[in-house]
Amino acid sequence: MTKKFITFEGGEGAGKTSVIEALADDFRKKSYDFITTREPGGIQIAESIRSIILDTENTAMDGRTEALLYAAARRQHLVEKVIPQLTKGKIVLCDRFLDSSLVYQGIAREIGLEEVYTINSFAIDNCMPELTFYFDIEPEKGLARIAQNKNREINRLDKEKLDFHYKVREGYLKLVEMYPQRIVLINADRPLVEVINDTKVTIEQYLKSVI
Amino acid sequence: MTKKFITFEGGEGAGKTSVIEALADDFRKKSYDFITTREPGGIQIAESIRSIILDTENTAMDGRTEALLYAAARRQHLVEKVIPQLTKGKIVLCDRFLDSSLVYQGIAREIGLEEVYTINSFAIDNCMPELTFYFDIEPEKGLARIAQNKNREINRLDKEKLDFHYKVREGYLKLVEMYPQRIVLINADRPLVEVINDTKVTIEQYLKSVI
Repeated sequence: MTKKFITFEGGEGAGKTSVIEALADDFRKKSYDFITTREPGGIQIAESIRSIILDTENTAMDGRTEALLYAAARRQHLVEKVIPQLTKGKIVLCDRFLDSSLVYQGIAREIGLEEVYTINSFAIDNCMPELTFYFDIEPEKGLARIAQNKNREINRLDKEKLDFHYKVREGYLKLVEMYPQRIVLINADRPLVEVINDTKVTIEQYLKSVI
Repeated sequence: MTKKFITFEGGEGAGKTSVIEALADDFRKKSYDFITTREPGGIQIAESIRSIILDTENTAMDGRTEALLYAAARRQHLVEKVIPQLTKGKIVLCDRFLDSSLVYQGIAREIGLEEVYTINSFAIDNCMPELTFYFDIEPEKGLARIAQNKNREINRLDKEKLDFHYKVREGYLKLVEMYPQRIVLINADRPLVEVINDTKVTIEQYLKSVI
């Protein structure tokens, strides 16, 4: 049995969370056996690790310490939540996964793509996603969407300089080149209904190929 | 200027903490510029990480999560405390460092020596100790010493089965073979005064060679 582990990636305001919600609605109608999740995903150890990362008093946190903590939280979420569901044959839709660390810590924070890949490779121990969607949009347009959406809290990353968001996009485009078999680029600079539709078509093709 | 970073390793009851105390007394008398430390070493972020590792409610913690957390705490202690002192030219005497992770997580807990080395290599980013002492003693004898010492709290590791402590010793002996230039084996199955004296002689030789 092929595990059905699908991840969703993108910069700020690319719309991936809305796409996941729409897919979940669709999957429920079709009675697919699935879960949606995101790190730290309610896993107690992973939540505790996350709270150290997000503690605003931890201003002196080194970039490598942060990358190791993200990898640790990822490991625990994977072992406690993702793998047990995959083992039961469920489809797992995960909002962000290792590619986020490769791009945000490895490339945008300049720790190094290979270095960050190495510790994440240790964390996931061969449990790679089978399919990853990258929702591509120009940083200015993504950030403009967020500014319009009053229901969404502005987090620390939204406030980063535009330059940072450009590095993030470049990073994702590099990963799309590196992993063409796994990562599907979706043009997110279109009406949401079209973005959702494209994603659905690709997911259905994928699911038919593995079931 | 050569940095003077010296670490102390050994199984339970090998006496390394007593040796470090004796060395510190000696260094003070000689007016050497030094600090002694051990992870997490009062570094707030590292202490927070350590408290997650030691939380007895975290019984479901995966071995790789734990190894990543140790590496994260190591990184922060190194960056905030060790490197600034080394940069000032001080001698840093550190009670346990990456070799402990290689042996305890990599070998005794069977995550794999190379795998654990990889994440620790990311954590220390080339800041390896110049000199490491390994205090060697048979596990039964080390544990018997601890049992006699009423002032010392019995921790979780002391309660591990004897088999685990044998794996730890085998692990350290393997590292001594792998890093003969860096790691000095001290026979710790002797009166403390002799163990201390041997360590002092080696440290003095080393310090003469780098000053």
